[in-house]
Amino acid sequence: MDRDALKRAAAERAVAEVTSGMVIGLGSGTTAEIAVALLGEKVAAGLQIMGIATSERTASLARSLGIALTDFAAHPQLDLAIDGADQVELGTLNLIKGLGGALLREKIVAAATRRMIVIVDQGKLVPKLGGQTPLPVEITSFGWPSTLERLAAAGYRPILRQTGGQPFVTDGGNHIADCAIVTIADAARLQADLHAIVGVVETGLFIGMAAKVVVGGPQGVEELTR
Amino acid sequence: MDRDALKRAAAERAVAEVTSGMVIGLGSGTTAEIAVALLGEKVAAGLQIMGIATSERTASLARSLGIALTDFAAHPQLDLAIDGADQVELGTLNLIKGLGGALLREKIVAAATRRMIVIVDQGKLVPKLGGQTPLPVEITSFGWPSTLERLAAAGYRPILRQTGGQPFVTDGGNHIADCAIVTIADAARLQADLHAIVGVVETGLFIGMAAKVVVGGPQGVEELTR
Repeated sequence: MDRDALKRAAAERAVAEVTSGMVIGLGSGTTAEIAVALLGEKVAAGLQIMGIATSERTASLARSLGIALTDFAAHPQLDLAIDGADQVELGTLNLIKGLGGALLREKIVAAATRRMIVIVDQGKLVPKLGGQTPLPVEITSFGWPSTLERLAAAGYRPILRQTGGQPFVTDGGNHIADCAIVTIADAARLQADLHAIVGVVETGLFIGMAAKVVVGGPQGVEELTR
Repeated sequence: MDRDALKRAAAERAVAEVTSGMVIGLGSGTTAEIAVALLGEKVAAGLQIMGIATSERTASLARSLGIALTDFAAHPQLDLAIDGADQVELGTLNLIKGLGGALLREKIVAAATRRMIVIVDQGKLVPKLGGQTPLPVEITSFGWPSTLERLAAAGYRPILRQTGGQPFVTDGGNHIADCAIVTIADAARLQADLHAIVGVVETGLFIGMAAKVVVGGPQGVEELTR
């Protein structure tokens, strides 16, 4: 099985939990987009749901598939969010997200939903967060060079994410500092320390947010819960 | 003396510390604008400085006065920032800022400057932060109803700031939740607790940032240092 097939298997399992009447958080990234596509098929077959998208890209995809979108004013609480992750820590189910650049909206959706299901291929599972995967930290565009200096001074080895020679701009108009934090010993502490740095909007650490992780692997689909 | 005269007296004292060659953080709000106007007069008389403005409004004012503006890419560290405050706590010199809606950029400038001088009239001095003055908390526009619910659930009694029946929009494209926190017993703890709420970008608590507070009162100008 290739990686896409593993992602698809996980997405199918998650989408099976969606029932008519639900307000669904629609994740971003390649794996989440498979789930959105599957939801589109179900909607075409009669499933009645409304979605809140975690990125402009996913919003466009959902619209193209006929998935009705709503907003937080109408639905401040969601029933279920389905999203991918860049790393899943075994045991805690803490996540690193944001390599796709949508971490802020993804986190707001995750905080506003009754349940968050994370779908990944097996390659995303790690015994400990960090290592090869940088931690994306969303920072304000105003003053970003100064914020980057503060992140560097604190030892987080930030690199400003760029695209086409320009700073990458998130849907919220912010930038991303990818921080090469090799060892994340205490995720909650790191999260608080990063938030204390002026200019930091949000981090890619999702602590205690995933209710369930559905993992696609060569031996089939496995479900992890805390 | 009326309140404007007190503000002007404080602004004059702060501006006296500005010398040629400095990069100056230009505050926002009525008192800070008096300082910017005074700097404009000095620039017209030959003072050579560059400014970084804490709001689009102050940037326009500075430009109209012939004050050269620079940015963080050229100057990640500033020499001096001069700004107002909504409340100054006696003793700690901790501040509440943000009633004018510019708290995020003000805080980034305050974090990036070697020294911050705060200028206020005597009416802004309080024994303890909070009370009648709400704490402005900047929140992302995406998902604001959900963030407001989390702030309310945590007991912070937030009210979305509105202008003309619409949510007030900051220079960063965010909204402001004015939180009626009557007693701020531990400002640092409150700051950390607020930052832990998903959707919170920054708070109006400025802890340990003011190097000096210049106070205009009927008996003259007084300087407070920690």
